[in-house]
Amino acid sequence: MALARSFIDVEPESHFPIQNLPYGVFRPRQGGSPRIGVAIGSYVLDLAALDDAGLLADTSASGKGVFAKPSLQAFMALGRPVWNEVRAAISRLLDADEPALRDNEGLRRAALYRQSEVELLLPVEIGDYTDFYASKAHATNVGTMFRGKENALMPNWLHLPVGYHGRSSSIVISGTDIRRPNGQMKPPDAAAPIYGPCRQLDFELEMGWVIGTGNERGMPIPIEEAEDHIFGLVLVNDWSARDIQSWEYQPLGPFLGKNFATSVSPWVVPLEALAAFRVPAPEQEPKPLPYLCQQRPCTYDIHLEVCLQNASSERPDRIAASNYNHLYWTIAQQIAHHTVGGCNLRPGDLLASGTISGDTKESRGCMLELTWRGTEPIRLSSGEERVWLSDGDCLALTGWCQGNGYRIGFGEVSGRILPAY
Amino acid sequence: MALARSFIDVEPESHFPIQNLPYGVFRPRQGGSPRIGVAIGSYVLDLAALDDAGLLADTSASGKGVFAKPSLQAFMALGRPVWNEVRAAISRLLDADEPALRDNEGLRRAALYRQSEVELLLPVEIGDYTDFYASKAHATNVGTMFRGKENALMPNWLHLPVGYHGRSSSIVISGTDIRRPNGQMKPPDAAAPIYGPCRQLDFELEMGWVIGTGNERGMPIPIEEAEDHIFGLVLVNDWSARDIQSWEYQPLGPFLGKNFATSVSPWVVPLEALAAFRVPAPEQEPKPLPYLCQQRPCTYDIHLEVCLQNASSERPDRIAASNYNHLYWTIAQQIAHHTVGGCNLRPGDLLASGTISGDTKESRGCMLELTWRGTEPIRLSSGEERVWLSDGDCLALTGWCQGNGYRIGFGEVSGRILPAY
Repeated sequence: MALARSFIDVEPESHFPIQNLPYGVFRPRQGGSPRIGVAIGSYVLDLAALDDAGLLADTSASGKGVFAKPSLQAFMALGRPVWNEVRAAISRLLDADEPALRDNEGLRRAALYRQSEVELLLPVEIGDYTDFYASKAHATNVGTMFRGKENALMPNWLHLPVGYHGRSSSIVISGTDIRRPNGQMKPPDAAAPIYGPCRQLDFELEMGWVIGTGNERGMPIPIEEAEDHIFGLVLVNDWSARDIQSWEYQPLGPFLGKNFATSVSPWVVPLEALAAFRVPAPEQEPKPLPYLCQQRPCTYDIHLEVCLQNASSERPDRIAASNYNHLYWTIAQQIAHHTVGGCNLRPGDLLASGTISGDTKESRGCMLELTWRGTEPIRLSSGEERVWLSDGDCLALTGWCQGNGYRIGFGEVSGRILPAY
Repeated sequence: MALARSFIDVEPESHFPIQNLPYGVFRPRQGGSPRIGVAIGSYVLDLAALDDAGLLADTSASGKGVFAKPSLQAFMALGRPVWNEVRAAISRLLDADEPALRDNEGLRRAALYRQSEVELLLPVEIGDYTDFYASKAHATNVGTMFRGKENALMPNWLHLPVGYHGRSSSIVISGTDIRRPNGQMKPPDAAAPIYGPCRQLDFELEMGWVIGTGNERGMPIPIEEAEDHIFGLVLVNDWSARDIQSWEYQPLGPFLGKNFATSVSPWVVPLEALAAFRVPAPEQEPKPLPYLCQQRPCTYDIHLEVCLQNASSERPDRIAASNYNHLYWTIAQQIAHHTVGGCNLRPGDLLASGTISGDTKESRGCMLELTWRGTEPIRLSSGEERVWLSDGDCLALTGWCQGNGYRIGFGEVSGRILPAY
């Protein structure tokens, strides 16, 4: 079967071919209220305008106003059958052989914006944010640094997907500047804790999944149904203040070391767009308890990169390259575990993977691991070295699935470090 | 000065005299939409009805529709000067010498409900929920049980208010049944973890404060301004599955051990109502860092009780009595710490104290401590014993400030344990 093609030109390396169609929330820079859009090539398709023009009339989402909203919540609440109808309708309208939008110049002008003409906003109202710790290489590296090789993995790690609740108020959209936090820390040579700007500022390469439909409190989501609750995936950078975190985290976990900011990418890639990139999940030994066992455990082959640039660099330096398929625990296992005690998920909740590291040095997903706690500096093309992030550094995470002649991409999540107040 | 008195009869032991005037959200059982009310004696005063009748016209909140809402958010967003105007107006309208409401029988019928005639709902939309660990006796007891007397308090505990992010989706109103969670745990004698109903179900006696006005991301709240951001206080029961928690919590803190449910009391007691019960906070040694130092550190003298009743009890047994003033860290310190790195609080966020335990055995705020990890059973009046909570147990937490001839009370937060599915 020939690859579907849009009447809109899409470069082979574009993240947004007709096979992707990720959802986001945008506001035209020329004015107007926030609304739902879909990325196609270097354009954004305005779904509110399409709906107004009657081009989504075949779908059950039509006429409900769900696309003229500042978040995806109302659309997501309609459920997967409706998501699928809308995805099929958009795919058809953008197809090279379909004249309805292609040959309607007035509507094209009204409903298609260049991405440079819009401001992208947080795509969902995030109720609760949960962060997991699903990379075995990451957990092993961090454990080795802090507790030695013999005690690297905690006894629970191979039996359950370790996770914790993060902060939702400080989740920001890609492009938002990140202020270096002040806080309390205790350098190893200090007799007492001190207050000041974080000295060990770090990023974390993660991916997050947006919950589209939730569950009732008290009613766990069985593992075989878990992926049905997911609307789509985004890139996540869970900024971390390692010195603040290491002083505060016992016994209740990370708090101020994480809650100053978490950045997410603007385009939510629907789970359907990733179907061709499902791959078997890593073998698990010991076999987990039955509530965590799937018939066909699978994960996704998503190439991930981290680039760092600052004022003295001519170009960004790629400092890490990893892959989503390095993760030990699957999305379905994490959702089944999260809800097994009755915890309710709500539409718009964000669940993230934790730092994604592989077994090679280049595939480590944070400075803590890349520089082995500051002992092995990274050399940048400008000649500068880094063990942690410096003021002015701009960090960009990106990721895509490589198809034959096309990419299902996630765009990027970026942020620049501002000096502490 | 004689004590203010309402034309509505209020028993001396009532939690809701005219000096209190706590806010809640209620729905008349006879029908109608949720709205804001104030508790007075055994009645609820409907603020939406008062506003419709023009009796709040002197306040800047009037005519904005903020009282006809299903949460306090819109009212809280108006800020403290408006909260104070409204409180003064309600106080005046309920005064024994003020005829406006007292002598208007039609309006009294429309605006005053017996508490038995209404359903109380969650008073705020809780964005983020943070739980602290502010009782030194609690942290010491738990540390002693799990790590021995020598290592009871972690090195950071005396330097900063330890806290973590909890789950907001599963916060429920008093009276909601609590389903015993299933989950993964590892009994000491088991070779591998097992799955099943929690065997060590516990409560935690806590108080929470509702954020009325937030801060911008990146802009810390200075300690001397911290209490200005608080709208009021509630009782909190942070239900805990100790066996699930102790297996999962390292290294990222509590997760499923806590996120199946947290119960809160329906009436938010305004900070203003507690002014007469401010007392000096405990001495702190070592002195904390300057960002945690207050000119006049203070706490509140709030008597707290825990009662347990089940089907075979004729009456509830009081199993613990404590006081808010046992806490080591003040509310202001906890807010200043929470935001010092730039984390933003939003109106409706709930911050809780952690388990409130004092130095005596009776003042311990959870079963874990009361029964010393199950080794010292509690004997109930029915002859039954408890080391953890049993199915059918109904637990009620209550609290009040004892004035001269009146009480500023918090009502109660209760919940009954249902068997696991």
